[in-house]
Amino acid sequence: MKIYFAGSIRGGREDWALYLEIIERLKRYGEILTEHIGSSELDARGESGNDLEIHDRDLRWLEEAACLVAEVTRPSLGVGYEIGKATTWGKPVLCLFRPSEGRSLSAMIAGAQGVAVREYSSAEELKPIFEEFFGGLGIIDRAQ
Amino acid sequence: MKIYFAGSIRGGREDWALYLEIIERLKRYGEILTEHIGSSELDARGESGNDLEIHDRDLRWLEEAACLVAEVTRPSLGVGYEIGKATTWGKPVLCLFRPSEGRSLSAMIAGAQGVAVREYSSAEELKPIFEEFFGGLGIIDRAQ
Repeated sequence: MKIYFAGSIRGGREDWALYLEIIERLKRYGEILTEHIGSSELDARGESGNDLEIHDRDLRWLEEAACLVAEVTRPSLGVGYEIGKATTWGKPVLCLFRPSEGRSLSAMIAGAQGVAVREYSSAEELKPIFEEFFGGLGIIDRAQ
Repeated sequence: MKIYFAGSIRGGREDWALYLEIIERLKRYGEILTEHIGSSELDARGESGNDLEIHDRDLRWLEEAACLVAEVTRPSLGVGYEIGKATTWGKPVLCLFRPSEGRSLSAMIAGAQGVAVREYSSAEELKPIFEEFFGGLGIIDRAQ
């Protein structure tokens, strides 16, 4: 199964190491199309190259993917855009959110049909969340 | 003409006064469906009430609107989501971006078809940008 993972790039790279950890855990369930999101070499200037080509490649990957898993703690236009497209296309979406004081998740994400929002505080807590989400899609942890 | 204006709410309210100024200028071209985005009383906790109802109301407004005008300087999941929906529905989108050092606009927004991105530094610079965008839709400034 192909999985599209979304996390902030030009919105800020503070969480890149967490993204990497999430990607490593997601690999147990399928092929991650967007491994570069977890790269330490990608900064907030984003990938070099033509924005039109980046946009079209990412949207092609999203179309190919069976589902979208998004880390939504850090606000990001691109991640929101991808959730908008994925829900339009009827793809299952899992949003991972780390709550903190004074911060609520966007109502457009929390209130969207076809989006499962799960709160967590560290990557260690993701195992049961992934088991539930991928289990619902009939996918089991390949490492088990 | 109905205009949907999008700006950050739960992503951060630092720009609310600018949003208010943009909304006042947009009123020359049509009815703004989302005037609350420019309210000083709306903080980053967002509107009270059910997220599902907020989501469905906003999406209904977006469907009704002839176009989407979004302030995209501050990263926001909701604004990105709305741009994703508007482009899917073939609605013209104008994105207003204030460049600053080390910050680039998301490639998913800058590279999206049907999205016009215009850079500016203050509301005073918006007149020709609005004239061009709304002129392209056959709409003229009602105050002229």
